[in-house]
Amino acid sequence: MRNVYLDHAATTPVHPLVLEAMLPYFSIKFGNPSNLHDIGREAKNAVEEARAKTAALIGAKPEEVYFTASGAESNNFAIKGLAQANSQKGKHIIVSQLEHFSVLHPVKGLEKSGFTVTYLPTDKQGLVDPTDVAKAITKETVLVSIMHANNEIGTIEPIEEIGKITKEKGVLFHTDAVATTGWIPVDVQALGVDALSLSGHQFYGPKGAAALYVRKGVRIKPLLEGGIQEEGRRAGTENVPAIVGLGKAAEIAAAEVSHRMNYLTPLRDRLQKGLGDKIDHLVINGHPTRRLPHTLNVSLWYVEGESMLLFLNMAGISVSSGSACTSRSLKSSHVLTCIGTDAAVANGTLLMTLGMGTSEEDIDYVIEKLPPIVHRLREMSPLYEDMIKKEKGK
Amino acid sequence: MRNVYLDHAATTPVHPLVLEAMLPYFSIKFGNPSNLHDIGREAKNAVEEARAKTAALIGAKPEEVYFTASGAESNNFAIKGLAQANSQKGKHIIVSQLEHFSVLHPVKGLEKSGFTVTYLPTDKQGLVDPTDVAKAITKETVLVSIMHANNEIGTIEPIEEIGKITKEKGVLFHTDAVATTGWIPVDVQALGVDALSLSGHQFYGPKGAAALYVRKGVRIKPLLEGGIQEEGRRAGTENVPAIVGLGKAAEIAAAEVSHRMNYLTPLRDRLQKGLGDKIDHLVINGHPTRRLPHTLNVSLWYVEGESMLLFLNMAGISVSSGSACTSRSLKSSHVLTCIGTDAAVANGTLLMTLGMGTSEEDIDYVIEKLPPIVHRLREMSPLYEDMIKKEKGK
Repeated sequence: MRNVYLDHAATTPVHPLVLEAMLPYFSIKFGNPSNLHDIGREAKNAVEEARAKTAALIGAKPEEVYFTASGAESNNFAIKGLAQANSQKGKHIIVSQLEHFSVLHPVKGLEKSGFTVTYLPTDKQGLVDPTDVAKAITKETVLVSIMHANNEIGTIEPIEEIGKITKEKGVLFHTDAVATTGWIPVDVQALGVDALSLSGHQFYGPKGAAALYVRKGVRIKPLLEGGIQEEGRRAGTENVPAIVGLGKAAEIAAAEVSHRMNYLTPLRDRLQKGLGDKIDHLVINGHPTRRLPHTLNVSLWYVEGESMLLFLNMAGISVSSGSACTSRSLKSSHVLTCIGTDAAVANGTLLMTLGMGTSEEDIDYVIEKLPPIVHRLREMSPLYEDMIKKEKGK
Repeated sequence: MRNVYLDHAATTPVHPLVLEAMLPYFSIKFGNPSNLHDIGREAKNAVEEARAKTAALIGAKPEEVYFTASGAESNNFAIKGLAQANSQKGKHIIVSQLEHFSVLHPVKGLEKSGFTVTYLPTDKQGLVDPTDVAKAITKETVLVSIMHANNEIGTIEPIEEIGKITKEKGVLFHTDAVATTGWIPVDVQALGVDALSLSGHQFYGPKGAAALYVRKGVRIKPLLEGGIQEEGRRAGTENVPAIVGLGKAAEIAAAEVSHRMNYLTPLRDRLQKGLGDKIDHLVINGHPTRRLPHTLNVSLWYVEGESMLLFLNMAGISVSSGSACTSRSLKSSHVLTCIGTDAAVANGTLLMTLGMGTSEEDIDYVIEKLPPIVHRLREMSPLYEDMIKKEKGK
């Protein structure tokens, strides 16, 4: 049986060259970068080389990149750290309703400690309107956080336009680029952001290494306190092998990103068309064109999503119903709610994210296997039967 | 030239069996544990197996172990999370003055937000007096945090006795066991603690995986918010390979800990005696017997510590002047200040921590190389000359 992994938004395998780069740092060059002897210095140099490569991928200076352990940590660090370090200016924060929970939960926490938060809606394709951001900014606004692209529906937000507004109004701007880094160009200067989160395992780097870009001169309060690491902004012994891996993944991504987009977009479109041709009552979620090249999110009417995942898994196809970070909670996605998807339809949602190992044959296999599963599940649904009868009666 | 690494308190190499256990989880079994398909489930199972092994090492239940990315994160999580989640009881915290900065800095932060903190002194050997803890506890006390053993001087604190007091008084008790786990027995029941920090890379596990034990039923506020991972108490995609490595390191440590103590204690004592016999005006820091088996911390009068480290490095010997987490700050150690070491003497301090790869030949090599370095540096010190003259004149 074929195995088709279409869940690259959940995590990617580590690239062979990335693993190769990491290997010496476990047992041979195993030093602690804080140590002054040669074994420590060797580790320190490796971390700084990785910092330069990570910075280069996003158009930043090395000293503006702080390593963390996950995209969630980068987002928590950014939201809490920027809001708290700059609260003398004011206590108002603006986010969109479709941010990742690692942004939304920290702002909820800040709300309890005296901040006020504006949660901007999006249109039905998941786009934030920059004029909404401009209107929401007050003299009290200290931080705007809008994600670069949504991890579930792939919609790419107008970050450049928002960046111009925040710059003009003198408000700090953070973007969660965990879903985009390595898949489309990410440049902190072009985007006009003051802070940006990215995560290694999202683009062929290892789990356990991520970063927060913080523009030079911007104040941020540490989340992990009590060590000199990362210029005192993030305590804890550096995860040297994983950081080296992130650096290598960044280097590969910088060289490959155009190729990735060119390879993935037609492959994703083939999947979208193939499924659309064979399955009725299928809704494509997200923006038709401003969308991550490897992302296809579809809602299938009258299908129980959990069962669909199980049948696909039995056919060797690995996909998700939405964000991995909430998958086991079995609640319907707040992102789909935000773009106005009916709860009954949202339940039958598939998030399919392709990768550089995905072939045309893989895509055709999914186009072959998924429709019969959908039909079988719908046959068991009285609602579907009613609807078909009604449509025929028209 | 011989290479002798005596800096195991800074970090240890990853054990070959640990690396072997980790390897499949980078590129083959690379799934995200939150995913419901087979690739995700395989990763989830690996994480849960590692949790069981880590729990077994410290006498805990698996569901009481929360994975983090570093000892510093575990300490930050414990201090902030326990204090904030239980502040309805009161806002008083007790710590010792020789806690790691990843405990001391978070309590300083809590002080700014309305908590009061008692910083207990120690005796000259670094021991906290349990009766001091008992006296310091008030009706407002919500948390006591005393480290299991100090990472610089190796003194093992009377945690069991303190645990009995906190239990009787109904106060939460956290211990930082980052320095002890894997080197001496650590059992949360025997110690009587409600929370305990440990870190993988301190005992032949990988960097990037650590844990916080939280006794069942104890409330703690998450530090990293916004994901369902770790029962919602710590957001962020699990670092599966590193967690698997931590589990394997815990399994090995559980089997080996008695052997480690038996192997390391006489070897450390050989180093202590060898140096003591050859170098005058040498002070052993820490407790003579209640001390980590692999730790030797010595202060050498009239020696500039930095130069000593450089000469040792040139001779292939890797040691530290103190905690890796503050090494580059070049300030004198707060731990040595706490035990009353004179600042001038503290400057000439060496922290030597042995490991299971340390041989008698390594020890004898250090006993051969260090004394001439010390003598050479002292020859350049007019203070030393004066002192010798005075002593002869007596």
